[in-house]
Amino acid sequence: MEKWKRSARLVDMTHQLLNVPYQLIPLTAFAKRYHAAKSSISEDLTIIQEVLHAEQSGQLETMAGASGGVRYMPGIGVVETKEVLERLCKRLTDPERILPGGFLFMSDLLGDPVLLHSLGRIWAKIFSHSKIDVIVTVETKGIPLAYAAAFHLRKPVVIVRYDTTVTEGSVVTVNTVSGSSGRMKQLSLARRSLAKGSRVLVIDDYMKAGGTARGMIELLREFEAEVVGVGVMVDSIVPEKLVDNYVSLTTVTEVDEKEKRIHTTIGNLFDQGAYS
Amino acid sequence: MEKWKRSARLVDMTHQLLNVPYQLIPLTAFAKRYHAAKSSISEDLTIIQEVLHAEQSGQLETMAGASGGVRYMPGIGVVETKEVLERLCKRLTDPERILPGGFLFMSDLLGDPVLLHSLGRIWAKIFSHSKIDVIVTVETKGIPLAYAAAFHLRKPVVIVRYDTTVTEGSVVTVNTVSGSSGRMKQLSLARRSLAKGSRVLVIDDYMKAGGTARGMIELLREFEAEVVGVGVMVDSIVPEKLVDNYVSLTTVTEVDEKEKRIHTTIGNLFDQGAYS
Repeated sequence: MEKWKRSARLVDMTHQLLNVPYQLIPLTAFAKRYHAAKSSISEDLTIIQEVLHAEQSGQLETMAGASGGVRYMPGIGVVETKEVLERLCKRLTDPERILPGGFLFMSDLLGDPVLLHSLGRIWAKIFSHSKIDVIVTVETKGIPLAYAAAFHLRKPVVIVRYDTTVTEGSVVTVNTVSGSSGRMKQLSLARRSLAKGSRVLVIDDYMKAGGTARGMIELLREFEAEVVGVGVMVDSIVPEKLVDNYVSLTTVTEVDEKEKRIHTTIGNLFDQGAYS
Repeated sequence: MEKWKRSARLVDMTHQLLNVPYQLIPLTAFAKRYHAAKSSISEDLTIIQEVLHAEQSGQLETMAGASGGVRYMPGIGVVETKEVLERLCKRLTDPERILPGGFLFMSDLLGDPVLLHSLGRIWAKIFSHSKIDVIVTVETKGIPLAYAAAFHLRKPVVIVRYDTTVTEGSVVTVNTVSGSSGRMKQLSLARRSLAKGSRVLVIDDYMKAGGTARGMIELLREFEAEVVGVGVMVDSIVPEKLVDNYVSLTTVTEVDEKEKRIHTTIGNLFDQGAYS
């Protein structure tokens, strides 16, 4: 555009800010783009901040100084979070999900970009103060959830593999027992994938006993990483978990294979203080 | 908010629309939310459309009638597309990427949420008229790219697996030879993952000979699916490909393992008519 009215500027600024969560945009960049005074830009930002705040859909953070600017930090309110998770709980109770052995078919949920986008906003809200360097998940089903969180936290994703492939370079491997299958599994991560001492958020789709999560934590210890959080989309109420602290978005309280019945409830996320 | 000024309304509408690409929002929903006349809403939408159009960052599509409404269709202009891909080309030429055998380390790129978000907008632009039902990729590295496309096309993702696991139910399997490793591989897809006759966009990270892509097409034939497009982030200029039509975003023209040299160029996407 050549001439920017305030109304057009507000639309474009909202677009620009929401497109790059957590990225600092200098006020001078906006002033230049819109041929406007910094004071006008500040007024526009106040309007945007008021709307985001009123709708509990995130906030703008302004940083003063020469290297300063403004950035959008995504958020989601309690009411919207509960709506999203109640819908997810309801979808999880579809008896058609029950697979032999009492496992649940969840690939359709993990393929739903709208659900994932909402869950990403929830992860970003829960872990917004955790100073994360990188999000780590394990192939295959954890990957979409990790990326959903990554977009809203603007952090890179690193994927732990079950097999080592030629295209990864040298790798570190640990052995672990999967809680859901009871089978021995190897978890591998390319040496160059993760810098030593990184602060890591672990994201996965499902936690039964927590064997995979514990294996991931062991593997990350080899990289001297600090695990600042563990989050899963679904956990089960039994058995007792092998990891101490984790956040679940939903909990499966009962799977009755014979009666074709699944009971679910919202997970432990509201006990974690992120929403208080 | 209780009272919505036009400026606040514009910010919130932009936010609402951009959050759900391709989803139709009824004008009555906006009118109710903002306690405003439909005519005012229409004026607001005109302003948003003008900005998106001027900045080539997508468009609003308005549908008339009782079931009508407005939806945001993401887009990206030629200039921004070239900027994104030239930056990607440059990152690909880092000689540190060369792994034994002339393979390239790309996990860092596939873990970068900002790059992925941009590539997703490019896929959405290229395939915006392809009437896609579902996006199919193969584990593990194609997954983030598929989700990036999925968010902007608002279509579900289905993941083809190299192994069959207990949590998927009954599966269909084909044998294929990987062009990059020369090894025989099995590709598997759960029967319930994909409805018969689906229109499929295949997305993957890398195409060398195209063996995996051809295997995917064979597998999809078992589901009577129609492959309406194949897209890869990177292809190599040699060898000749086993699939006829595909879109590449970047092309590796030379990998000299001894001299530690990589040459890249923008892929064939501009030959495909999507940007004309």
